Amino acid sequence: MNYANRMKALKPSDIREVMKQIAANPGTISFAGGLPDPALFPGEAMRRATDKVLRERPEAALQYGLTLGYVPLREKIAALMGREGVAAGVDNIAITTGSQQAISLSALLFLNGGELILTENPSYLGALTAFKTFEADYIGVDSDEVGMKPEDLEAKLKAHPEAKLIYVIPNFQNPTGRTWSLERRKALVELAVRYDRVILEDNAYGEVRFEGARIPSVKSLDPGKHVVHMGSFSKVLSPGLRVGWICAHEDFIKKYELVKYGCDLQPAELAQMQVNGFLEENDFDAHLETIKGVYKRRRDLMLATMKQAFPGEARYDKPEGGMFIWVELPASMDTRAMLPEAIKRGVAYIPGEAFYPLEDRKNAIRLNFSTMADDKIVEGVQRLGALIKERL
Amino acid sequence: MNYANRMKALKPSDIREVMKQIAANPGTISFAGGLPDPALFPGEAMRRATDKVLRERPEAALQYGLTLGYVPLREKIAALMGREGVAAGVDNIAITTGSQQAISLSALLFLNGGELILTENPSYLGALTAFKTFEADYIGVDSDEVGMKPEDLEAKLKAHPEAKLIYVIPNFQNPTGRTWSLERRKALVELAVRYDRVILEDNAYGEVRFEGARIPSVKSLDPGKHVVHMGSFSKVLSPGLRVGWICAHEDFIKKYELVKYGCDLQPAELAQMQVNGFLEENDFDAHLETIKGVYKRRRDLMLATMKQAFPGEARYDKPEGGMFIWVELPASMDTRAMLPEAIKRGVAYIPGEAFYPLEDRKNAIRLNFSTMADDKIVEGVQRLGALIKERL
Repeated sequence: MNYANRMKALKPSDIREVMKQIAANPGTISFAGGLPDPALFPGEAMRRATDKVLRERPEAALQYGLTLGYVPLREKIAALMGREGVAAGVDNIAITTGSQQAISLSALLFLNGGELILTENPSYLGALTAFKTFEADYIGVDSDEVGMKPEDLEAKLKAHPEAKLIYVIPNFQNPTGRTWSLERRKALVELAVRYDRVILEDNAYGEVRFEGARIPSVKSLDPGKHVVHMGSFSKVLSPGLRVGWICAHEDFIKKYELVKYGCDLQPAELAQMQVNGFLEENDFDAHLETIKGVYKRRRDLMLATMKQAFPGEARYDKPEGGMFIWVELPASMDTRAMLPEAIKRGVAYIPGEAFYPLEDRKNAIRLNFSTMADDKIVEGVQRLGALIKERL
Repeated sequence: MNYANRMKALKPSDIREVMKQIAANPGTISFAGGLPDPALFPGEAMRRATDKVLRERPEAALQYGLTLGYVPLREKIAALMGREGVAAGVDNIAITTGSQQAISLSALLFLNGGELILTENPSYLGALTAFKTFEADYIGVDSDEVGMKPEDLEAKLKAHPEAKLIYVIPNFQNPTGRTWSLERRKALVELAVRYDRVILEDNAYGEVRFEGARIPSVKSLDPGKHVVHMGSFSKVLSPGLRVGWICAHEDFIKKYELVKYGCDLQPAELAQMQVNGFLEENDFDAHLETIKGVYKRRRDLMLATMKQAFPGEARYDKPEGGMFIWVELPASMDTRAMLPEAIKRGVAYIPGEAFYPLEDRKNAIRLNFSTMADDKIVEGVQRLGALIKERL
């Protein structure tokens, strides 16, 4: 018997393959993953919050619950959306199994097989994989330091009426670390309204801004039903709980409820009560400040080391938040071909090629600065810089 | 902009609608849900297991993990499969977000839009909804007290080469409570092999057998790649943790990994470690005996009260496990039309019609016996019996 047709397009992700190589070489200094630093997880506070839930409300925490999620947590998330300039209520929030599920549910809700998604170029590999899982194809839109270029976006909207969704990561994008300007956000919404498409705003990194002023979210510019905002506690609390959310017009949320029910009935009740308890009993902002302080220091250290160790031809920006620095090397470089030697020398990264699935661009690398300790960052960047210089 | 075509076929489930009416009438004696009794959740043992995990391994428990799931838990599940007569290893197990996700991932893996699933008739509403979510259609196969009738199954396999999956609940089926005979299980596998189709064996209730001998699972009869077994901790430990599993040929598991990754990256790490810790530190079998003792008593009480309170025309079996009794009333009865009056009198059930989406059979009801206390069972069945007699 044959598998579904979609299976032909699915293969193990490049990132997971690199991770396996790293796992086979313990001691590797890895700038490859997109993991938060586990030393920053609030383990003890989460233990206390969990203990309280399981002492006081075990019957509720271990029982079935609502498909859209635990109401007190949805209330807190609605309030958090205020920081993004969005006036949301409980009926605008659906809890998801991490923001990856927010992406896959959106594909189910909006796309028929063969329809299209417009993405930044490059874009997040996990999202591209999610779209493929639902037989949707994607087309990259030319993007620079401040977002998609409106002229190219408009040209592609015109050329592809079947491109129903526009997927963007406006804050500290994965993989580039770049942040959209307000002007570009406005242009994006204006085009989505004019051409009647829906924007998926992936804000997984939004709370990890350690420099500069917050820019209004794309959702805050939505005149009604043109933006679906996706958030997550994975980068700021714990990815192992798998608690993310969708914030959207109430009509959309009612539809998300139907697809969520078909996929996995409901989010985990206990995990939601754990996050809810943590938020009630702790100072979330103080926790965020701790994370941001560490990540800012590591970004600065990585950039300072790169300045010394990388060749002058390497181009990169200074991200104002998030977890990644994107490096463009001369066009002649093939960073995938270089990776085995890098791992042999004890340092790993993700070849930029992985984020350009439709093109043949081999000269970029994505460096993660959130996971490694300070001394490892210095050592790893120096090793990598030496290797790049040799290969130039 | 239009939603995906699949949305036309999705509507809120009948069960959820009945649940809302019940919620609006607190004090209702509800035989409607399919919930385990929360008083039987091992709250304190789960609290201790969780506390240990978050004290000893917070960095692992709150971090990202493997798409197929936490290896020590997969090992334990592989061992549990031995009870079902299946020799499984870690590579045969994928953890899912409850067994509902095992169903939806199976639809993604095997079915293109418009392809078919053969189901028992009646069958589990949540599965039917999951299939619809992936644009698959289903056809009921004539079923009796001991499973699908092989002649009708074969006729439908012949007539529908696009029916790639056969979905069955061989133990204490939802909604009928019925269990397949070994002979019927063998005939099912034989037909699946002969016509090259895949069986989805949903065993959510398998461990809740309180009477009679265990019958070998359908998976145990699989000569190779024709049965996907789906299990869950929802009925025997906690549905609020959302931990289920797939047990299948290693080739299938590698494909499930790809669709799981696209849907939500991975199962929740902490929830898996909680279940794993619970299984390590507690006597799971003793816990099962406690559950089964209570449910058996309630089944017996419900049947004894039905014998007195229901009219002689009502037909029902004695399930050997699970949570449900299925009642067939004379063909003239319309149990959906009767429901508002039942709720007015303080008792609720699910009209059988909900489990026959393709037909016009209005005369059955599903009664759940796992949730209500003994005195409520007696009171509720008496009220319902009186109402049915009035309506006859």
